[in-house]
Amino acid sequence: MNDTTANAAAEAQPNHWVLTFSCADKPGIVHAVSGAIVAARGNITESQQFASSDTGRFFMRLQVESEATRDEFEQALAPVVARFGMSHKVDNVGRPLRTLVLASTAAHCLNDLLFRQRAGQLPVELPLVLSNHGTLRDLAGFYGVPFESHPVTDAASKAAFEARVLEAVDEHDIELVVLARYMQILSPELCARLAGRAINIHHSFLPGFKGANPYRQAHARGVKLIGATAHFVTSDLDEGPIIEQNVVRVDHSRSVSELVAIGQDEESRTLTQAVKWFAEDRVLLDGARTIIFR
Amino acid sequence: MNDTTANAAAEAQPNHWVLTFSCADKPGIVHAVSGAIVAARGNITESQQFASSDTGRFFMRLQVESEATRDEFEQALAPVVARFGMSHKVDNVGRPLRTLVLASTAAHCLNDLLFRQRAGQLPVELPLVLSNHGTLRDLAGFYGVPFESHPVTDAASKAAFEARVLEAVDEHDIELVVLARYMQILSPELCARLAGRAINIHHSFLPGFKGANPYRQAHARGVKLIGATAHFVTSDLDEGPIIEQNVVRVDHSRSVSELVAIGQDEESRTLTQAVKWFAEDRVLLDGARTIIFR
Amino acid sequence: MNDTTANAAAEAQPNHWVLTFSCADKPGIVHAVSGAIVAARGNITESQQFASSDTGRFFMRLQVESEATRDEFEQALAPVVARFGMSHKVDNVGRPLRTLVLASTAAHCLNDLLFRQRAGQLPVELPLVLSNHGTLRDLAGFYGVPFESHPVTDAASKAAFEARVLEAVDEHDIELVVLARYMQILSPELCARLAGRAINIHHSFLPGFKGANPYRQAHARGVKLIGATAHFVTSDLDEGPIIEQNVVRVDHSRSVSELVAIGQDEESRTLTQAVKWFAEDRVLLDGARTIIFR
Amino acid sequence: MNDTTANAAAEAQPNHWVLTFSCADKPGIVHAVSGAIVAARGNITESQQFASSDTGRFFMRLQVESEATRDEFEQALAPVVARFGMSHKVDNVGRPLRTLVLASTAAHCLNDLLFRQRAGQLPVELPLVLSNHGTLRDLAGFYGVPFESHPVTDAASKAAFEARVLEAVDEHDIELVVLARYMQILSPELCARLAGRAINIHHSFLPGFKGANPYRQAHARGVKLIGATAHFVTSDLDEGPIIEQNVVRVDHSRSVSELVAIGQDEESRTLTQAVKWFAEDRVLLDGARTIIFR
Repeated sequence: MNDTTANAAAEAQPNHWVLTFSCADKPGIVHAVSGAIVAARGNITESQQFASSDTGRFFMRLQVESEATRDEFEQALAPVVARFGMSHKVDNVGRPLRTLVLASTAAHCLNDLLFRQRAGQLPVELPLVLSNHGTLRDLAGFYGVPFESHPVTDAASKAAFEARVLEAVDEHDIELVVLARYMQILSPELCARLAGRAINIHHSFLPGFKGANPYRQAHARGVKLIGATAHFVTSDLDEGPIIEQNVVRVDHSRSVSELVAIGQDEESRTLTQAVKWFAEDRVLLDGARTIIFR
Repeated sequence: MNDTTANAAAEAQPNHWVLTFSCADKPGIVHAVSGAIVAARGNITESQQFASSDTGRFFMRLQVESEATRDEFEQALAPVVARFGMSHKVDNVGRPLRTLVLASTAAHCLNDLLFRQRAGQLPVELPLVLSNHGTLRDLAGFYGVPFESHPVTDAASKAAFEARVLEAVDEHDIELVVLARYMQILSPELCARLAGRAINIHHSFLPGFKGANPYRQAHARGVKLIGATAHFVTSDLDEGPIIEQNVVRVDHSRSVSELVAIGQDEESRTLTQAVKWFAEDRVLLDGARTIIFR
Repeated sequence: MNDTTANAAAEAQPNHWVLTFSCADKPGIVHAVSGAIVAARGNITESQQFASSDTGRFFMRLQVESEATRDEFEQALAPVVARFGMSHKVDNVGRPLRTLVLASTAAHCLNDLLFRQRAGQLPVELPLVLSNHGTLRDLAGFYGVPFESHPVTDAASKAAFEARVLEAVDEHDIELVVLARYMQILSPELCARLAGRAINIHHSFLPGFKGANPYRQAHARGVKLIGATAHFVTSDLDEGPIIEQNVVRVDHSRSVSELVAIGQDEESRTLTQAVKWFAEDRVLLDGARTIIFR
Repeated sequence: MNDTTANAAAEAQPNHWVLTFSCADKPGIVHAVSGAIVAARGNITESQQFASSDTGRFFMRLQVESEATRDEFEQALAPVVARFGMSHKVDNVGRPLRTLVLASTAAHCLNDLLFRQRAGQLPVELPLVLSNHGTLRDLAGFYGVPFESHPVTDAASKAAFEARVLEAVDEHDIELVVLARYMQILSPELCARLAGRAINIHHSFLPGFKGANPYRQAHARGVKLIGATAHFVTSDLDEGPIIEQNVVRVDHSRSVSELVAIGQDEESRTLTQAVKWFAEDRVLLDGARTIIFR
């Protein structure tokens, strides 16, 4: 009756490579890339590609088993990358992504990230949680993740907090910053510095509600669905490229606080899913859209 | 292997009554109503109620089996209705609601309404379809539903069309007007005349998109969910009380025309569901919200 | 931006009562019950009822605000309960249910129960976790819940474990036993002792798979949906009355271990939902079925 | 406000090719195939592949734009197909699949297929509906599809019906047979003749129910989800490789006939989806599983 094999910790697999490419679309890309892989003695185990009619760009993600070293791989790919003017990345499948979490007082998103990381379901390592409150210190501590809090109460303390974020990004060689219900607006400068590598979560409704207390507004309008959207952080608040969305059905009998609790569940699972896909190199940017190679 | 018993046509059941009530909430309402039902020799087979903390109003829907006539029922209820200042309605369970459909050129919503009406799954009768185009004449004809088209091209023809709507409402003693992808904005006067008895359907996205070609905008933003909202018509376009919402998952590979096709499916099933609940007296208005006694 | 009001701990509300009733269906029940509530100076804030055509039984759940004491309430209800031969229960809304959790090595269900209990989203108190392994001791400890483990390796140790379960049920006046992926079959005697107050969770597939390693079988058949079912424990393994079910979509690319991880998520949320409804007195038994007053 | 662009009829696109391949997995396949496509002056617009760890087989589906003729394409592919011992298929994107529908008396599945075919959302042509009842003659007639009925009442009439099926398959060069609630068990011989090109739909429950009247059994057990499974027909009834599954939530208040109506909706949309994917060459067989290149 034991089926807990999924609990094995996420681990990098030394001979299993994930490759991502993007470039202007033209004939011959797949043939050239697959030729380089043959040259690196690789066998393709997973492959996805997409040609965007919006931007004319081509995207590809491959998983390849090969005894070749990273250098051999890069050497085999170099002429192809040059010929097509590609952006590309080579990594080991399952290598944990160095991830910095920003949080405030709400525990639900942080708890889900920590639990799944420990359960081996989320290929990230978490060198640090930074918060503007001390509320979640014990939770991080239980999972053995270092935790720092610095109050943000005015422009100066906000600037100091953001400076600490950038310092931590450098110090831990951070690849992804996750805003796990971090309830402060980032400065445009920080957004720009973290472009394409910071993910935020926010609640979502049909229709959308602007301004304070959106759950109260949603309740007053009698919405039947509430949900959450995970998206890249941009300086245009809550408007970055969408990575994942979920909704759940509600009815007239739900109080505002019940809507909040339901919305938090959707936020947790939506954020964790987005982080997982990003850590697996499944999220590629195509202008204002994301390509998700699930 | 035959399981098509649901296909029996919707029929009014002479000894099965549906009662709806709304009034200011106070103690004793249920006791008083149930006393009247005992007096009318009735047995409650279904009961739902809700006290709205937003508006302080109380809502109740009952189904009652009784040999009493409608007059006997109304007599038994009269003192209770007077005492609590109730709005109320007494009807036969399953009585088909007289419904006028407005349509334009898109067939999906009309087809779904017609098919389910014939299949006995939708307790409505459809004395007329009015359209500003002739496109759907054959579809209505196949189901034996009268169809009229009148072009709407300017202010005068629009006014004439709306006058014909009101005339048809009187002529056929219409209880519900359904905008089944009727692609014209109703005048504020017509909205006011049909308040609380006209249902519209529109596509829904997270986030919402204003202006022309919303599917193109949704595509450009890379939304992961698209859906539909059925709501009461108000003069505030697409902003009336929400009756039902559905969404479906999409991904980056969907073209704009595929998004449209997917959205149409959601529109059909969402509108049909809303009409069914309304026809079964399950939709009550509580200010800007709906109470849905599913 | 703070919307964490749902995190207030679940608390009993002294003047807010939840009442449940079941009896053979006949006219006049609602009138009689609502009369007793009027007599106890109560105002009904939530009401649901259902007459089962399968068993001829009537079920009702009420929430009532009243300054009356429990004794006054019981006194007002006594003649009604006697007249209709009712089973009934009177309790305070939000009173935490005394709940014993049985677990083995899988953490996902226990973690979800503990986290939501602390977050105030699950009205239970957890005096003890009993396990046949020590694996989850630290997790329980983090949430301050006492934890005991006793190995179950043969008939004698199994009998001892079950004896300890019954002892703990008495000692802590347990109202609900939750099998949170407790991977041992309970003896028919223990099932009988816990009838109607023990909930189990198991994975669910379409079609069902018998025998060992169901996820491997589901993978081999290429199922597109996997899910979980929470049900009352009966001696007929995995066949008790169903409380809640959920499914999630999967595709051919998922490995067996990925299916396991996805299934665990469904198990967690399905079990927690079932426990929540039970703790709120929303689950009533109607023969082999459950009535869920959501 | 017009968004009905999806209603353009499905049409074959002369320069847009869909290619499917399957063979034993080994290195170099993608490189070889993409080389043949470069040789045929093709540009890959959509590509999906999967290596099955269960069977060791490799599957690929490509869409390719090219001015090459079919003969040129086949010539370019021939050495690759020979080298890897591939099964393969070359077709025009959007070419309507010649499809024979078998039906009995239930209209819901046939109606959905016909409506979507006319709406241009389903790339099939329907030269004939065969039924063991005359019930659906008018429905087929409305959509201009020839309809024949032949009663099946004993072994001889059943054999005659099945002979007519095979004759019609030859006469119309049928590529797919759809059992749209055809309520007769096919003989093992017919199943064998139609292997891999006949799709059936049946209701699905958690847990599964054997024997007569499954909706009644599902009602008695109080299931919370009911659904539908579309699968390839095999002589093992209801057990062929699964193509698509859907479920919908129900509760205790649903009568058996309501469950039937809800189940029919799931059947319609699940069957239509399976037919669409098959017609688009997105369904490949991998032993007892299907690979669905959505």
